[in-house]
Amino acid sequence: MSSIKMFEKPLGMRDKFPQIYEKVEAVRHTGRNFLRSRGYEFIKTPTVEYFDTVGKASAISDAHLFKLVDSQGNTLVLRPDMTTPIARVATSKLLKEMIPLRLAYFASVFRAQETEGGRPAEFEQMGIELIGDHSVFADAEVIVTAMELLKQFGLENFKVTIGHAGVLNCILQDYTESIEQEDVLRTLLVQRNYVGFEEAVASFDLPKTKSDALLQFIEEAMTLKEIRDIEKYVRKNDALEYMQQLAKLLEIANLAQYVAFDFTLSSHMSYYTGMLFEVFASGSGFPLGNGGRYDGLLEVFGSKVGATGFSIRVDRLLETITAQASDKEEAIVVLFEEEDFEEALEKIEALRAAGKQATLQLRSSLVDEAAFLTHFTKVVVVGQEEIRGE
Amino acid sequence: MSSIKMFEKPLGMRDKFPQIYEKVEAVRHTGRNFLRSRGYEFIKTPTVEYFDTVGKASAISDAHLFKLVDSQGNTLVLRPDMTTPIARVATSKLLKEMIPLRLAYFASVFRAQETEGGRPAEFEQMGIELIGDHSVFADAEVIVTAMELLKQFGLENFKVTIGHAGVLNCILQDYTESIEQEDVLRTLLVQRNYVGFEEAVASFDLPKTKSDALLQFIEEAMTLKEIRDIEKYVRKNDALEYMQQLAKLLEIANLAQYVAFDFTLSSHMSYYTGMLFEVFASGSGFPLGNGGRYDGLLEVFGSKVGATGFSIRVDRLLETITAQASDKEEAIVVLFEEEDFEEALEKIEALRAAGKQATLQLRSSLVDEAAFLTHFTKVVVVGQEEIRGE
Repeated sequence: MSSIKMFEKPLGMRDKFPQIYEKVEAVRHTGRNFLRSRGYEFIKTPTVEYFDTVGKASAISDAHLFKLVDSQGNTLVLRPDMTTPIARVATSKLLKEMIPLRLAYFASVFRAQETEGGRPAEFEQMGIELIGDHSVFADAEVIVTAMELLKQFGLENFKVTIGHAGVLNCILQDYTESIEQEDVLRTLLVQRNYVGFEEAVASFDLPKTKSDALLQFIEEAMTLKEIRDIEKYVRKNDALEYMQQLAKLLEIANLAQYVAFDFTLSSHMSYYTGMLFEVFASGSGFPLGNGGRYDGLLEVFGSKVGATGFSIRVDRLLETITAQASDKEEAIVVLFEEEDFEEALEKIEALRAAGKQATLQLRSSLVDEAAFLTHFTKVVVVGQEEIRGE
Repeated sequence: MSSIKMFEKPLGMRDKFPQIYEKVEAVRHTGRNFLRSRGYEFIKTPTVEYFDTVGKASAISDAHLFKLVDSQGNTLVLRPDMTTPIARVATSKLLKEMIPLRLAYFASVFRAQETEGGRPAEFEQMGIELIGDHSVFADAEVIVTAMELLKQFGLENFKVTIGHAGVLNCILQDYTESIEQEDVLRTLLVQRNYVGFEEAVASFDLPKTKSDALLQFIEEAMTLKEIRDIEKYVRKNDALEYMQQLAKLLEIANLAQYVAFDFTLSSHMSYYTGMLFEVFASGSGFPLGNGGRYDGLLEVFGSKVGATGFSIRVDRLLETITAQASDKEEAIVVLFEEEDFEEALEKIEALRAAGKQATLQLRSSLVDEAAFLTHFTKVVVVGQEEIRGE
């Protein structure tokens, strides 16, 4: 048995007890109804995929993949995200039936962890993918859907921070003097290492106009409220125009108050080729979710259609939803002695027919009756007056 | 990329497309409401467990376990059943709070496969565990709950076939002449190899009274309707008395019509120590589900309390539920041109406010408009009269 105790779980793995389970169920129920009402259809993909298909394309670093080997010697992975499996499904079969395809999911994803007490190794994501629509209207739909989904849970204090890989590329290209410099700065932004960014800019020995522009860009970038604030840094280009149009659409949809722009946003997911965004609830340093356009991913799977989507982390969402003072659900227990089984059955059937949640329990099996009864709002003892509740 | 194609999935792994997804959801919803109304609380355990805890105890053969190794060199498994993880949870923490514990689950379990087109490598089970009640009333509750759960899905043609490890042991012991003979016969029953059973009996060179009794037992065993039919083979013992009492309770509960007895029932799950049962729907050769008392499993986890439960396979349940002629759900699509976005938003908001399922789609993004529109029951084009539906 080595050093593992009988009750232990692998690093980062958790049990979900009834109270949390029901909270997740409530989120699932609300989210599902909402996304279905928008024309998104739910699908489920296998927990286990080939490393060569989903594992490699997913862009989750190798150290965080759960890998296993099948009887044929193929390497398998536990799915590290849902976007890649859905891209596999969409480019293989479903897509031919219906473009644009609107798919939704509520699923566990897996990230191997090396220390206990840190990040979870398995967590649930809820999200959508809109596949086969290149237009800015598809991106607007995805962002609007993310925002309205959050509102379904009573969230009002949130921001969707939007960037664009093309705008960032244009800025990095215009104010550096080599592709190497561009890459260094992009990597630092992926790591959100803004101090490192400033140090790197200083070390490049750039013309003062360029280094000043980069330093001012990084300073202002995260406080941008309006898309026009970025215009002074960027020459006119398609990506900027695209973002201007997207901003306009979100304004028409009356959601501008939830929008912020951040053109330092850069993803380690190399398949994000255009617009990308993160969702923050006030008071949380971690994004609740993220999304964007990932035309590059579908190309990996041999398809030329565009795709865009988002996912929300259910555990982080639960943390932000104000704990509503929910009344304890009514829970009745019917206690009986062996000889009263028939009468007990009649009693419990009547309660259940009346829509009550009711547990039937042989009294003599109880080791600690008092402790057991604390879990019920009402206790009925067959052959006696009620002993508690009402 | 070796020989794996981009769209392939590991052996036995399947995608679940929207139509099936919704059927599973309906089963999940109905089952959950029913089990909760009976006082069962849902929990979720990790997909990945230690081999040394859950893997070894689960009694699923090694060849069918998905195994992986973590960064510390520990062997992990994808859970092959839910009974063992729940036993882990119950004996570690929850159990102290509330005995008897009534837990329920709806979860995927994993069994590695070596050929395609055969059994699924991942499938869903719904079930309950009643932990901490040694009485026959707990076993009756579990069987009654299984039967009434099936009725929730409109099933009427099903049988629950009940056996008891203790009764079988008593018969095998009384009519053989060594522990080796007992073990040979028990193994053949686990494999349901009744021809092999008869051949083995013949080869043992037993006294004629013993071999005749065994051959008659095996011939009659699967057609037993009444518990008293077994009495001629078995000397009076606790296990038989237990089964007589259980049969009585199921009669009082008015469920005797769904009961059959089969004392050849023997499980490869060595933790089934007493009563065990299988659920068959008419017309299916495979059991829909199974269950029983597994006090032995909790002992592995260091607990002395009794436990009993069952699980139903959701895929097999779906096959038996008569395809109800469900009306196609109303699905509206609103098509718009770029310049009509604002008007389109107003239209879709009105539809959604009226509780309609409505998809918003930029018309110029459609590659094959006719194919796309076949997926909707009603089409609205902004700025025009409706073009289809109503």
